[in-house]
Amino acid sequence: MQDNTHVKNVIITGGAGFIGSHMADFLLAKGVRVKVVDNFSTGKMRFIEHNLQNPMFSYETADIKDQEALTKAFCTWGVEKQHYDIVFHFAANADVKGNVTNPTKCLHENGIGTSNVLEAMRANNIKKIVFSSTGSIYGEPEVFPTPEDAPFPIQTSMYGASKAYGEGLISAYCEAYGMQSWIYRFVSILGERYTHGVVFSFYQQLMLQQQNNESLQMIFLSDGTPRKSFLYVGDCISGIWHGVTHANNNVNIFNLGTDEEIVVRELGEILVHELRLQDNVTYQFGKTQRGWIGDSPFIRLDIRKLQSLGWQPRCSIRDAIKKTAHYLRDNSWVLGEKYFRDT
Amino acid sequence: MQDNTHVKNVIITGGAGFIGSHMADFLLAKGVRVKVVDNFSTGKMRFIEHNLQNPMFSYETADIKDQEALTKAFCTWGVEKQHYDIVFHFAANADVKGNVTNPTKCLHENGIGTSNVLEAMRANNIKKIVFSSTGSIYGEPEVFPTPEDAPFPIQTSMYGASKAYGEGLISAYCEAYGMQSWIYRFVSILGERYTHGVVFSFYQQLMLQQQNNESLQMIFLSDGTPRKSFLYVGDCISGIWHGVTHANNNVNIFNLGTDEEIVVRELGEILVHELRLQDNVTYQFGKTQRGWIGDSPFIRLDIRKLQSLGWQPRCSIRDAIKKTAHYLRDNSWVLGEKYFRDT
Repeated sequence: MQDNTHVKNVIITGGAGFIGSHMADFLLAKGVRVKVVDNFSTGKMRFIEHNLQNPMFSYETADIKDQEALTKAFCTWGVEKQHYDIVFHFAANADVKGNVTNPTKCLHENGIGTSNVLEAMRANNIKKIVFSSTGSIYGEPEVFPTPEDAPFPIQTSMYGASKAYGEGLISAYCEAYGMQSWIYRFVSILGERYTHGVVFSFYQQLMLQQQNNESLQMIFLSDGTPRKSFLYVGDCISGIWHGVTHANNNVNIFNLGTDEEIVVRELGEILVHELRLQDNVTYQFGKTQRGWIGDSPFIRLDIRKLQSLGWQPRCSIRDAIKKTAHYLRDNSWVLGEKYFRDT
Repeated sequence: MQDNTHVKNVIITGGAGFIGSHMADFLLAKGVRVKVVDNFSTGKMRFIEHNLQNPMFSYETADIKDQEALTKAFCTWGVEKQHYDIVFHFAANADVKGNVTNPTKCLHENGIGTSNVLEAMRANNIKKIVFSSTGSIYGEPEVFPTPEDAPFPIQTSMYGASKAYGEGLISAYCEAYGMQSWIYRFVSILGERYTHGVVFSFYQQLMLQQQNNESLQMIFLSDGTPRKSFLYVGDCISGIWHGVTHANNNVNIFNLGTDEEIVVRELGEILVHELRLQDNVTYQFGKTQRGWIGDSPFIRLDIRKLQSLGWQPRCSIRDAIKKTAHYLRDNSWVLGEKYFRDT
């Protein structure tokens, strides 16, 4: 297989989302032609609108659950025919907490969705795929930091199960059809355009309480003791690109995180300090270590595999939380939107 | 959870198939009421017809891809309402070789099918599930015999990926809804009612050649050197039941195989000797060790986990091949049917 340093035309599914839109900006800055395919269910026009005048950028509103629309989107640029070199497949349902009330959503959006992406690639002879997987596929691991070849996990969420299936399908397509893949198992990602997750929920709570002149309370779903790892979105994008340009196996699987972890309570405190609310906020904790069903109380991925290829994260978890706080403070419009359409 | 020694009412999906119909016979002999749910795509009426007069037995023609039909089937006994204790979920597409020409079949039959089974269980408050998984989920492992906690595998077939997803979904449902599961990773199963796989293909070839007065050739897809493990269906059933009655975790995962392996060439030779054709057959080998895309050239599962609970396989691979040969010889009607509807 050729290396990807000089890739020219790419598709990004979920390209109007948090990570996808950063990937689009990054690739455009490298002179790559980028087509975003997004159903805008959680993706946002505001994350891509600065690129709308760029002739190297286009987008199409299409749902990865719609095989026919997807197959067409993967071979067109506006009204013209276009062949693409790589699909960055980032479109997904990322709502782990919602699994229990809507257990088949991950099947449809992550399982069937990924199958549709692979079939659309096959129909259009696209041979390379980059996939956003998750550390959740390790379930509740017993080895920390958890390496890529950790013991065969027992899944604890429909989300993790569906992402593991996405990985498995992609690997099987590589075996069957000579495709090539780069699969990244992320920790939680923070930074600009961050629109859901623990920091977002904390911030949203506080702003709502402030608005209603209520006393400020930071409410933890867990007992505050879970230890989690986070990665700044800029490091996430650099890590993805580093793997894509430095690993050339048929199936390339990498953990993507930092060499740090943080206790969730401390994460809350950093956020509160950054908002200069430390004298006003009280903390309220849940009774159990697991904040929700399928929550893993300790997440720390072993990132030495990607580090051995020369990649290094640059931003600490503390700084990533601060950047996220600043972004949310400066973009209050994000808080107004309901992130998950049906929860 | 209660133990399952005194289970009263069970569903068997795929209960007219090879393993499912043996499970039905076994449970009926124990006095359990058995309802078979099968779409008869590969299941056969001849495998269950001896039970049709048994008042403890019933069957319903329904497809696990049909959520509505399944949900109804899981709460009825004929026209009456019935609650079931356990679902033995054996309905599946087991055709690994067909993956490459029909890559989404496993998604529909094994992925979506298993999701439908779990949703039908949830709708009818059935809390226990037994699942037929496969050693194929280990991809091409590096540890032999391969234990249940082998390193996180890279999937090499859509079949393996879909079965791993089935396992993951079941585990996630156990976590989310307090269900309990027994998951068995099988090697290839041999014995009475065996209707597809390597021994079947070899036998079918030879009978067809004999019928056409051609010279007898045993044609191997591989170079004959792959080493595989096989288990007699009687041992498979006893192993499943042993796990169900001796393991009581929320998620119970067991390899199911023998302490032996056999070189595929030798398997062919045993079959030929058993048919008393050793003076007439020549052997023709493929050029590569992998017989087809997604084929694993070495399969040997570590079965100590189930053995440690007191289970032991009784039939050697050699005897399992002989029993299979006798069954096929005495049931030539099996050869006449096309096993896979659309391959």
